Amino acid sequence: MNTRRQFIQKSVLGISVATLPGLSSGWTEPVDMHPEARASESFNLGIAGYSFLHFDLDASLAMMKRMDVHYLSIKDFHLPLDSTPEAITAFHQKLKAFDVTGYAVGPIYMTKSRTEIDAGFEYARRVGVKLIIGVPNKEDLEYISEKTKAYDIRYAIHNHGPEDKLYPNAKSVYDLIRNLDNRMGLCFDMGHDTRDGQDPVADLERYHSRIFDIHFKNVTAATRDGKTCELGRGVIDIPAFVAMLRKIKYTGQCSLEFEKDMKDPLPGLAESVGFYHGVVAALPRS
Amino acid sequence: MNTRRQFIQKSVLGISVATLPGLSSGWTEPVDMHPEARASESFNLGIAGYSFLHFDLDASLAMMKRMDVHYLSIKDFHLPLDSTPEAITAFHQKLKAFDVTGYAVGPIYMTKSRTEIDAGFEYARRVGVKLIIGVPNKEDLEYISEKTKAYDIRYAIHNHGPEDKLYPNAKSVYDLIRNLDNRMGLCFDMGHDTRDGQDPVADLERYHSRIFDIHFKNVTAATRDGKTCELGRGVIDIPAFVAMLRKIKYTGQCSLEFEKDMKDPLPGLAESVGFYHGVVAALPRS
Repeated sequence: MNTRRQFIQKSVLGISVATLPGLSSGWTEPVDMHPEARASESFNLGIAGYSFLHFDLDASLAMMKRMDVHYLSIKDFHLPLDSTPEAITAFHQKLKAFDVTGYAVGPIYMTKSRTEIDAGFEYARRVGVKLIIGVPNKEDLEYISEKTKAYDIRYAIHNHGPEDKLYPNAKSVYDLIRNLDNRMGLCFDMGHDTRDGQDPVADLERYHSRIFDIHFKNVTAATRDGKTCELGRGVIDIPAFVAMLRKIKYTGQCSLEFEKDMKDPLPGLAESVGFYHGVVAALPRS
Repeated sequence: MNTRRQFIQKSVLGISVATLPGLSSGWTEPVDMHPEARASESFNLGIAGYSFLHFDLDASLAMMKRMDVHYLSIKDFHLPLDSTPEAITAFHQKLKAFDVTGYAVGPIYMTKSRTEIDAGFEYARRVGVKLIIGVPNKEDLEYISEKTKAYDIRYAIHNHGPEDKLYPNAKSVYDLIRNLDNRMGLCFDMGHDTRDGQDPVADLERYHSRIFDIHFKNVTAATRDGKTCELGRGVIDIPAFVAMLRKIKYTGQCSLEFEKDMKDPLPGLAESVGFYHGVVAALPRS
């Protein structure tokens, strides 16, 4: 079993427990009664904070507990960039009470000035995570690459579909960062990649060396008009995607970003969580 | 694709459309945008009405629509046994508006007197379904067998676990009805069968010729103390169960009976619906 304790011990993200404020004491086992029913994978299911746009942290964590999901990508509406050290400690303590790890911050938009880049790295350092999901200007990529070295924090650029002039798909990001520091990579939004007419399974394989995080979702159409839907109801072949996650030995999170029914997301999120676990449970190991 | 239209045309349950009040006109295709994302099976997912114990019919159907589930096993708290023909017609019309088929009635307890048996068959005839889920006395089984012939309505006995002196498991039912009319069978509660220490996958194979309906669920333990839980979180190997459903070419419903969080069942039901579809999507065809 890939228990969370083992995950932490493996330190997949390079985070040692002691570096996370409020997370320095012992870990408790998962709260679900039957962790053995969950298949062992090198990756984990998470939730992208944006799914909880209309909910405060307590309500969001209550939903995660209900769904038995333990990884959260932190959005600034749950933990503002100017949070005090005390607020950050309290944030992590609250997450710990729900057996949730905040493993990344973002997406953070950094297109107005380099001040935003500097502030983003300082924020990540203070929060204690080793991964920033960001949207920068292309002109700043080398500057950011130097930052990733200086902070030893990875930076994952988020692709946002055909409307996104900067980063419509995975390839557009990869081509820009492939020769930069290897802490420069992608938060692969498989839904927006698909909406841009790309093959998300093929792109996962092609660019996996730089895929640090995944916005895990499905969409109703492989076109600009495609909308996020429940994980099992869209055009992306999720079993094929999960098979590829295994093939490439992905060790990050698959964080559900559910942009449907955002004022009442729990049923659709829960269906998606169930679908993921059903695929993992039934997909044969090659 | 096994569309619902095809399902009706196949008349798996022996129900012709014209015999269902309020269902005599044309059928519309499923409302979900991407039915092609759902794998084709000879069986369908449904909901056992008991899951909606605390909800009226409108609220129950709204939840089914949200989850994109189209088969309902009808409980008497949604359609009382003494319903007038007009109430039955209105009931079916309401289900039709939600693209839901009420395919069976029950469980109905019939242990007090044969009057209950007679009333149950009359109710099923008036409702227009060809399947009763019932709990009868053993002494009445031959009487019921004659009823199934007279009405051409199948009768599925519900097994209820170790506390059930009459029908703790599938075998206890099968041994009693195997020599009766072949319209006598089981509503196989795989959770209670497991709680009784039985192997639900093996029992599905052994008794499938008489399994007319399934209360589809998982449980936290294979003992008396086991409780219903979300489909992917329990001790029953659901992929193995679904593989067996395919092997035996099951043509009935798998109706989720979710006895957890009954005053707020939607998240757990939705997770279970997702898990089922994930298993169906990822399980290889042998």
